[in-house]
Amino acid sequence: MAFIVFEGLDGAGKSTLIEALKEKLDQKTLEYISTREPGGTPLAEKLRQLLLHEEDDAPVSRAELLMYEAARAQHVDTVIRPALQNNQWVICDRFTASTYAFQKGGRDLDANQIHWLNNYATNGLKPDLNVLLDLSVETSKQRMEQRVQETGVEKDRFEKEEQDFHNRVRQAYLDLANNEASRWLVLDASKTREELKSSFLLALSERGFIE
Amino acid sequence: MAFIVFEGLDGAGKSTLIEALKEKLDQKTLEYISTREPGGTPLAEKLRQLLLHEEDDAPVSRAELLMYEAARAQHVDTVIRPALQNNQWVICDRFTASTYAFQKGGRDLDANQIHWLNNYATNGLKPDLNVLLDLSVETSKQRMEQRVQETGVEKDRFEKEEQDFHNRVRQAYLDLANNEASRWLVLDASKTREELKSSFLLALSERGFIE
Repeated sequence: MAFIVFEGLDGAGKSTLIEALKEKLDQKTLEYISTREPGGTPLAEKLRQLLLHEEDDAPVSRAELLMYEAARAQHVDTVIRPALQNNQWVICDRFTASTYAFQKGGRDLDANQIHWLNNYATNGLKPDLNVLLDLSVETSKQRMEQRVQETGVEKDRFEKEEQDFHNRVRQAYLDLANNEASRWLVLDASKTREELKSSFLLALSERGFIE
Repeated sequence: MAFIVFEGLDGAGKSTLIEALKEKLDQKTLEYISTREPGGTPLAEKLRQLLLHEEDDAPVSRAELLMYEAARAQHVDTVIRPALQNNQWVICDRFTASTYAFQKGGRDLDANQIHWLNNYATNGLKPDLNVLLDLSVETSKQRMEQRVQETGVEKDRFEKEEQDFHNRVRQAYLDLANNEASRWLVLDASKTREELKSSFLLALSERGFIE
């Protein structure tokens, strides 16, 4: 089993690859759980709601970061570690790298303090692989607008941020991936879904995760 | 102006002294705000609700600590610092020492990590005076039971903890007060309300906070 995390700007195609991985694991009759951050437990989902939609008393940057880490500690201890101990694969939509990208890149909080908090919340647990779906901010924005039109789901507090915020988020992701290349797979998310899916599955096989 | 925090086990008489201080400040026509932790802002009050009453998916110790610190960061930045900058006294029911006493003493979390997080959440802000209402666990428990009987208000997650938990909390408070005596005033909360009130006001005057 392995702990695989999907990262990237909204609209990059995380869901497509998560579905592809689930399909693959089903074919191989390998057990897995599929979860997300912020969230993944009842308490953490309540924190998610406050994080993404509390507008009247929107969290200041440090409060926001601490709430993400609180949700993460609960998620790691009550969901992720038990699954791994149970030999299940863990598929997770966003994890510590999102915190770095959004809170360091986006909000300009201190990188060392974020690393300290990520490490504290996870008790040192790291994904075996982070899959970054890299996408230009323009394309991400177009896809997000299309989603709003098609589904009527309102933008959250992060989706409402300026283009420059999202440019910094993207750069912070790329920096992380460069600094720890062995734990990262960077894919060009401007490709078609089918192309993306096959590069992803090929890379998983090449890196020995699954045939 | 000054930033004065009241600490102690439940039933120790914090409210009595808070009222006494407010009365005194009113007499002197000094401006103040009176607030509490966890809480003090709409977001922090939502976190308080989860901290004290979430039983189905009760926060693990690290998540609990991080939620306290998130609520604190919001409270410090949006309520406490603005009031101090505005030359108002700040009266606060519990602050960083509660986190140390309950999470280090009660939950046995690491003291250095708690100090790091307290410092991160407050951005280094410390109370000018912590008032500890020291009370035996037996007396605290008796007073709490009486409150439940009189008011029908249910015990929260902490009030339900065992006697040994509360003994460790009390000891952690006393240790903090011993280590930084100049910032602490320790009062014997087994005294009558009137005795407590007059020792408190006398001490405030002796320490030069207010005549």
